[in-house]
Amino acid sequence: MSRFRWCDDDADAAVGPLLVDGADDAERVRDAYARAVWSCLLEPGDGVAGALIAALGPLEALRVAFSTGGVGDVVAARQLEEGRARWQPRLDADAIAFALGTARSVGLHLVTPDDGAWPRSLDDLGPHAPICLWVRGDAHLLGRLDPAVAIVGARAATAYGEDIAAEFAASLAGRGIAVVSGAAYGIDGAAHRGALAVEGPTVALLAGGVDRPYPAGHSDLIDRIAHAGAVVGELPCGLAPTRWRFLQRNRLIAALGSATVVVEAGTRSGSLNTAGHAAELGRPIGAVPGPVTSGSSAGCHRLLREFDARCVTTADEVAELLGLGGSGPGLPEGMWTDESTRVADALSSRVWRDIDDLARRSGVAPDQIRARLGLLALSGAVESDGSRWRRAASRPRR
Amino acid sequence: MSRFRWCDDDADAAVGPLLVDGADDAERVRDAYARAVWSCLLEPGDGVAGALIAALGPLEALRVAFSTGGVGDVVAARQLEEGRARWQPRLDADAIAFALGTARSVGLHLVTPDDGAWPRSLDDLGPHAPICLWVRGDAHLLGRLDPAVAIVGARAATAYGEDIAAEFAASLAGRGIAVVSGAAYGIDGAAHRGALAVEGPTVALLAGGVDRPYPAGHSDLIDRIAHAGAVVGELPCGLAPTRWRFLQRNRLIAALGSATVVVEAGTRSGSLNTAGHAAELGRPIGAVPGPVTSGSSAGCHRLLREFDARCVTTADEVAELLGLGGSGPGLPEGMWTDESTRVADALSSRVWRDIDDLARRSGVAPDQIRARLGLLALSGAVESDGSRWRRAASRPRR
Repeated sequence: MSRFRWCDDDADAAVGPLLVDGADDAERVRDAYARAVWSCLLEPGDGVAGALIAALGPLEALRVAFSTGGVGDVVAARQLEEGRARWQPRLDADAIAFALGTARSVGLHLVTPDDGAWPRSLDDLGPHAPICLWVRGDAHLLGRLDPAVAIVGARAATAYGEDIAAEFAASLAGRGIAVVSGAAYGIDGAAHRGALAVEGPTVALLAGGVDRPYPAGHSDLIDRIAHAGAVVGELPCGLAPTRWRFLQRNRLIAALGSATVVVEAGTRSGSLNTAGHAAELGRPIGAVPGPVTSGSSAGCHRLLREFDARCVTTADEVAELLGLGGSGPGLPEGMWTDESTRVADALSSRVWRDIDDLARRSGVAPDQIRARLGLLALSGAVESDGSRWRRAASRPRR
Repeated sequence: MSRFRWCDDDADAAVGPLLVDGADDAERVRDAYARAVWSCLLEPGDGVAGALIAALGPLEALRVAFSTGGVGDVVAARQLEEGRARWQPRLDADAIAFALGTARSVGLHLVTPDDGAWPRSLDDLGPHAPICLWVRGDAHLLGRLDPAVAIVGARAATAYGEDIAAEFAASLAGRGIAVVSGAAYGIDGAAHRGALAVEGPTVALLAGGVDRPYPAGHSDLIDRIAHAGAVVGELPCGLAPTRWRFLQRNRLIAALGSATVVVEAGTRSGSLNTAGHAAELGRPIGAVPGPVTSGSSAGCHRLLREFDARCVTTADEVAELLGLGGSGPGLPEGMWTDESTRVADALSSRVWRDIDDLARRSGVAPDQIRARLGLLALSGAVESDGSRWRRAASRPRR
């Protein structure tokens, strides 16, 4: 391994072609290059690097990371030492050159927190936010993800779950709300397809380099997402997904979504991890119920039971979860009762009955009955022959 | 109509044979008779009568109801006047004699708040509690309903809902927890059948006189419930159910259950009314989720969304709702993550890898890797050749 050495003059060639704006600003280019290098050194979610970069800027943070000595209050000496021990084995010039070269050759975009296209919702991750994003497709879409909905779920989904995911996604994306998911088999794929079907915005977050479509069986789908929306990852080109990276990718899905909806999930589904990240971020979680006899819904039911997830059954209810109005709660009809019911019960549709008879049958006092009958008559529910009453033939359904 | 007149000497013959205990105590017999008469005069839930009886006792309350003048602070003059107007049309000696005669001839029990068999949970209804209960079967079962579970739902149930209702009921009744329901078609019937199948306790609340099995198609089922448990109503013999009486019957189901579980319900199902009563009483509500595409589960989903019902998917979860322990919440596996994941990700099951290689692959510092490998080795998940490591062939499932 040949040790990487920083040179300001390399920045333009290395990342200039990758930037969506600011490529004529030398300082921004240099910072973007430093971030790109950082992204080759880190596993996702490295909070020590995040704190260092936030405090010092990416370039100065790099210098500190590969020199010796402390950095005052920014991170504790022991943390910095541990960080250096993690980062230094990866300071490989060839690996970094390969990652950036691949990014240029496949036409990726590099989006950093300095860009207008940076999704501000990621800032909620604090020091665990990604250092930069690698994007295939419409990088500017990332700046328009408020609101966006994360729709995730089991790979081992049922037709029921896939139908719901596609339907919710189509309905929401049709209103311009971006559908964020992980491009996995099952629910994720169905959600992306639903959005694509209505030519709505959709964003796929990958757990490895975005030059490597994963899963391979979704290469075509991922191409279509890149064409119509964006395919995004925080790892540089060439890196494969690992279990850790999947779990950390989930935090990005949760952070990008204004709310996370789990459509189907077994009790060990990775989508519960996404929901866990959403909960940590204070984002609302929706869970779609299903048959209690279906293992594919068991995780959703645990979210309802144990994590205060909101039960969502329609796209409108998801929109409500996103804070976009919706119809609001109303009382289910028939949940509450009143005395008119008793008067109506006592009436016949065939036989005329007088007030005394109705009083005996209903247990409602004659005066009250007269008042109720008056109201019922106004609504056309009853008719009178002068002294007696019966239900009107066209009695409206109560 | 011949006006009913009170006579102390009638009490013994009228209700003595109906009492489950205290039949040798003249005062209790007289009070029970007064309550039986009251039950012929009232529609269920008459709070004015309830307040009068609570304050004055049933006999004195009867005297007041059919004289003139006020009763001090017990009820407002206007309320008493309205009450009298409701009750007097029903003060029919023949109707009362018929109701009590039928009760004796079909072998009913009359249970009052003075009896040990009175279910104390009904006291939570305050002045809207029933004046007395008419019981076919084991009246003493009513004194042992703490805890009991109300399992209710749509008449238009699906096979899914009926299976769940029967399974929950069998499991809970098998532990001695009484299953309370309304003997209706669909979920109610399935719940009773589930309890009967394990010879567990079950109680059916009817909306009319208990001498009239309703619905007629459940006559056999209702007979079986009376034989093995109890069939209960607050209306005297001979009276038919009405819509009002169904809705008020639901308050008894909700009050007798320590919790109410709705298994399936359309958005207009009467079981939502039962859930509403449970909510008013502060009793927990459980709702069984189902497919969002099933109209028979739509009411359950509304309870989850709008009424803070608890999602219940197993009989154990219902037991938990009843406050009977249960397994308690645990974190879904895979919801949270740690660095061991990254070390495990970096290991191969074929190739031996040294610490430096693992550090590069995992982004975890060498010292940390040694510590994690030590733990993984303890659990048998990894093996070492001295300086290099790989996954053990028998790696346990994480």
